[in-house]
Amino acid sequence: MKENRIIEKMIYDGDPGHDDVMAILLAAGNPGIELLGVTTVAGNAPLEMTTRNALITMDIIGADIPVAAGCSTPLVKPLYTAPFVHGESGLDGAKLFEPKRKPLDKHACDFIIDTLMESDGDISIVAAGPLTNVALALRREPEIASRIKQLVIMGGGRFGNITPAAEFNIWSDAEAARIVFESDIPKVMCGLDLTYQAVAVPEIMERIRAIGSRVSEFVCDFMTFYNNNSRRAGKNGAPVNDACCVAYLADKNVFTTRHLRVDIETKGEFSYGMTCIDFFRMNSGKPLLEPNVYVGDKLNFELFWNMMISAIASLG
Amino acid sequence: MKENRIIEKMIYDGDPGHDDVMAILLAAGNPGIELLGVTTVAGNAPLEMTTRNALITMDIIGADIPVAAGCSTPLVKPLYTAPFVHGESGLDGAKLFEPKRKPLDKHACDFIIDTLMESDGDISIVAAGPLTNVALALRREPEIASRIKQLVIMGGGRFGNITPAAEFNIWSDAEAARIVFESDIPKVMCGLDLTYQAVAVPEIMERIRAIGSRVSEFVCDFMTFYNNNSRRAGKNGAPVNDACCVAYLADKNVFTTRHLRVDIETKGEFSYGMTCIDFFRMNSGKPLLEPNVYVGDKLNFELFWNMMISAIASLG
Amino acid sequence: MKENRIIEKMIYDGDPGHDDVMAILLAAGNPGIELLGVTTVAGNAPLEMTTRNALITMDIIGADIPVAAGCSTPLVKPLYTAPFVHGESGLDGAKLFEPKRKPLDKHACDFIIDTLMESDGDISIVAAGPLTNVALALRREPEIASRIKQLVIMGGGRFGNITPAAEFNIWSDAEAARIVFESDIPKVMCGLDLTYQAVAVPEIMERIRAIGSRVSEFVCDFMTFYNNNSRRAGKNGAPVNDACCVAYLADKNVFTTRHLRVDIETKGEFSYGMTCIDFFRMNSGKPLLEPNVYVGDKLNFELFWNMMISAIASLG
Amino acid sequence: MKENRIIEKMIYDGDPGHDDVMAILLAAGNPGIELLGVTTVAGNAPLEMTTRNALITMDIIGADIPVAAGCSTPLVKPLYTAPFVHGESGLDGAKLFEPKRKPLDKHACDFIIDTLMESDGDISIVAAGPLTNVALALRREPEIASRIKQLVIMGGGRFGNITPAAEFNIWSDAEAARIVFESDIPKVMCGLDLTYQAVAVPEIMERIRAIGSRVSEFVCDFMTFYNNNSRRAGKNGAPVNDACCVAYLADKNVFTTRHLRVDIETKGEFSYGMTCIDFFRMNSGKPLLEPNVYVGDKLNFELFWNMMISAIASLG
Repeated sequence: MKENRIIEKMIYDGDPGHDDVMAILLAAGNPGIELLGVTTVAGNAPLEMTTRNALITMDIIGADIPVAAGCSTPLVKPLYTAPFVHGESGLDGAKLFEPKRKPLDKHACDFIIDTLMESDGDISIVAAGPLTNVALALRREPEIASRIKQLVIMGGGRFGNITPAAEFNIWSDAEAARIVFESDIPKVMCGLDLTYQAVAVPEIMERIRAIGSRVSEFVCDFMTFYNNNSRRAGKNGAPVNDACCVAYLADKNVFTTRHLRVDIETKGEFSYGMTCIDFFRMNSGKPLLEPNVYVGDKLNFELFWNMMISAIASLG
Repeated sequence: MKENRIIEKMIYDGDPGHDDVMAILLAAGNPGIELLGVTTVAGNAPLEMTTRNALITMDIIGADIPVAAGCSTPLVKPLYTAPFVHGESGLDGAKLFEPKRKPLDKHACDFIIDTLMESDGDISIVAAGPLTNVALALRREPEIASRIKQLVIMGGGRFGNITPAAEFNIWSDAEAARIVFESDIPKVMCGLDLTYQAVAVPEIMERIRAIGSRVSEFVCDFMTFYNNNSRRAGKNGAPVNDACCVAYLADKNVFTTRHLRVDIETKGEFSYGMTCIDFFRMNSGKPLLEPNVYVGDKLNFELFWNMMISAIASLG
Repeated sequence: MKENRIIEKMIYDGDPGHDDVMAILLAAGNPGIELLGVTTVAGNAPLEMTTRNALITMDIIGADIPVAAGCSTPLVKPLYTAPFVHGESGLDGAKLFEPKRKPLDKHACDFIIDTLMESDGDISIVAAGPLTNVALALRREPEIASRIKQLVIMGGGRFGNITPAAEFNIWSDAEAARIVFESDIPKVMCGLDLTYQAVAVPEIMERIRAIGSRVSEFVCDFMTFYNNNSRRAGKNGAPVNDACCVAYLADKNVFTTRHLRVDIETKGEFSYGMTCIDFFRMNSGKPLLEPNVYVGDKLNFELFWNMMISAIASLG
Repeated sequence: MKENRIIEKMIYDGDPGHDDVMAILLAAGNPGIELLGVTTVAGNAPLEMTTRNALITMDIIGADIPVAAGCSTPLVKPLYTAPFVHGESGLDGAKLFEPKRKPLDKHACDFIIDTLMESDGDISIVAAGPLTNVALALRREPEIASRIKQLVIMGGGRFGNITPAAEFNIWSDAEAARIVFESDIPKVMCGLDLTYQAVAVPEIMERIRAIGSRVSEFVCDFMTFYNNNSRRAGKNGAPVNDACCVAYLADKNVFTTRHLRVDIETKGEFSYGMTCIDFFRMNSGKPLLEPNVYVGDKLNFELFWNMMISAIASLG
């Protein structure tokens, strides 16, 4: 029962996006999580789309969780969205509609700052889109660095998905990522090598479909589009990257981590936005920088999907 | 018998170096290879050391294969050697001596250019050090691009061994690497993810020791030092990276390859000298560049070490 | 008389700083300017110092103009202050004291955003420190780009004063500068080649001293320190760079301008933070970018100092 | 008389090019210069063109000075020629023909190396094109650094002529320039701010025309084209940049110099190929690098053109 365990309070910052919606559903439906709000950013789709998709999700699950819209462009580089993955709407496949719920009349950064500054340091953030909102909030109110219990980031990894070297979220705003990674916030990173273990394979989709609820139908609609995109690339389903972050806050056993130094490349010609992960502690003879991130490693696939499916089922 | 098969003519360009010496021994002892010369470059150790180590190897095996010294510094960046891996001599562990043989009175680049330009296109090059000599030769005589049968490079890979992102040879002279990788020369790349499969594990060292020759004793001496360095890092032996290139020329079955685009990062702050390998054919919406390198993948460990051990044995 | 002419409303954003204080005095004392507020940023000195120096200035002139503290670090790079120019206090030479006035309980960015969004587009900004506050405000509320009447920037120029290529303000936060320069805000740039014409030569100092007021004494105190720093470098006084921006808002005749393309270098090894000014419309055959800044050129020295001295005199 | 003064021995390395031809004529015709050879590089035009133009010049003046062709591409970046300045031929305006003389059967780098290594250190080099040949020679034979009496470079300056920040020769091969500028060779730099003082104004052209020789006619033909290009840009003639270098070797009084640190930007986004000249000895608090170049400053216009015109006249 919810009361008998520690409830992790969290803000979800992201760019919904198929896997973002899965992450929000997990956060809303998992008994160990209290979702304080969803803040949106441009990334997978333009800001209006990602905000609308967050609101649609709230309508679907009937949850009055605040949604605050944030930055419509990255800090320094131009916006580049990913319609080739998520469709023009950012959530193609779903039966989309004009949401009844409205976003807060407050910028995402202000929502993050105010919520954290009024807290006693027990709130975590999942950041599963470009890190623009988090970086902006941090520069606007540096005090939040010591108020965030944990920042769980979907981004980076040992390989890329938008360029050979870079993952989409970090690449989308590498300067923001650099600000965040170089901050004192306690950080966990869910890179592609972790999240690509969280594929919605056909057996999983069957289990979701079997729930037979309005929410499960919603999930099956958009996940079918999303999975088909991956299937065309020869895979047996798409990874729900962002949901890994939420799962970790709900249960640390969902993946193993290693404490490592990770630096963000902002100057490279072919490697802009890469997370340079120092697995072996070396730096061409120069002084080593301290480990700054817990990097996710091996996913417990069963545990992950059990949590995910339970959450969907619980949302009716 | 040597006469009954196609003999691969090759020049070995490298910075001996423990694994270079293994590569040279394989080239000298394998019946399918005709080693036309060894050219040296600064890298693992300063040029005088790498040249001396090449000459010592020739003395040990009693082979009158020409050795030509090349570049003593990288093209643009300063020289940075690796005494922490190879010792100050570049070949610590071996009983070193003043070699009887002398290097050619000809620069490595001129040796490479002249040998290739006098050929009818049937000569391959193994480049297992920083690519300075090859790049310089290519700019000095662009015609050699169409005369090199195949250039097999030890360098790069999906992870680094001198910085988190970069392998030592490419990082040592990334501008030279860029020149070579962007050239029309047919190229094969033996990156760290391939060569780290070629570890001189204790069982292999036993088989080499059992040969009981002067050459095998020489090998055991320097490989013991080299393996111990790796063993301190928790591994069961060191990889003889450079020898993978020679093995491939002798027998294409020694590893599988994939034809991929590889670009060399020369601007990055954290990723200078990285080989950006495009496994998934993507480039943030920009036009894809053509595959330019055959990237080595899975090593046939048994085949590799059988070749290596036979070569050592044959050198008596 | 003030009523008979257009009064330019402005917010002053800077890092006082000797020349910032001169700029604030000009803004407060010139009849053509209505100074709505002063926002502070880290730069010449840490944020606490620059904010204190702004408040001390208000105490000295007895003006209840709001002061709001802003960003304590640049967006991406670490803070680097200039005690070698301005002393540890940022205003060495002045008789400093604990100011009676206090800063607003509002962040500089919020002050800028709120003031602009409540306006009908008639407010200009002088930005005479690192551009962190302006960039942050712009990303937090993109609408302000169309509300700023004019942004007059002290920064950049054809030569540097912190590195051979870069001026201190731009170099201090080149990413912020890039955000601002690439925005649609109407911009005027007072680079070093302009502002170095505004030197407080001995004759000028004599005229200021002759005013014989508390304010003129304050000015003489800190300007003596500031001038001496330049005098040690062989010059006959220091340039009051920041005041040029305010003078321009008060009277466009104070310097000539040219409409040019200016790009901010954020990747360079030796030229980070440089303003690349395209005087001759050329770009190695690539498409030219549109002019985006009015670049200040020739200063009317007499007009400038007459305005400056009148303002000081008027402040009693 | 030639015998009574010190004769400066020199090799001319360049990419003729209108101003290169002027430089070669000055070197050939000035009694204080002994022109040992001309080496060519791709730059203003492709290598075949620049080599042909050098040979045509030798035919015109009837001089049997060796011409050796060098590098056809820059070290790392792709070739980018300047037909918009020099026409497709590299020497438009001249009556071009198939030269009778032929280039040496020796690469420019080898000519440079051999000539220097056989010398006793009394030979200077004028490098008035991209620095590819010089850089390549230096890496191929590092000993030449101590054999070059003086290297006089046409390149760089306080502003650009191919991008807002970069001059054509340095920008064309910034990696080569970096190699050369960081070497120990004694260096003099003729940047654009110097060479733009050497404009072939109408009065000068009149004096050249008045010589009335075959050579002066040749000069007038190609200079008319070259000057017209500049005239369209609103100037009263074109600068014969490259000739400044030769003039300096003939008479040090032709321009003043300052000993300064100059670094070559090879990483910048907007400033690639810029010469970062440290006029004021500053580096954002980091250790200052030693001055490495004598940077040309004020040209003696009369002296320069008198030398130039005398040389043309002497060539008959």
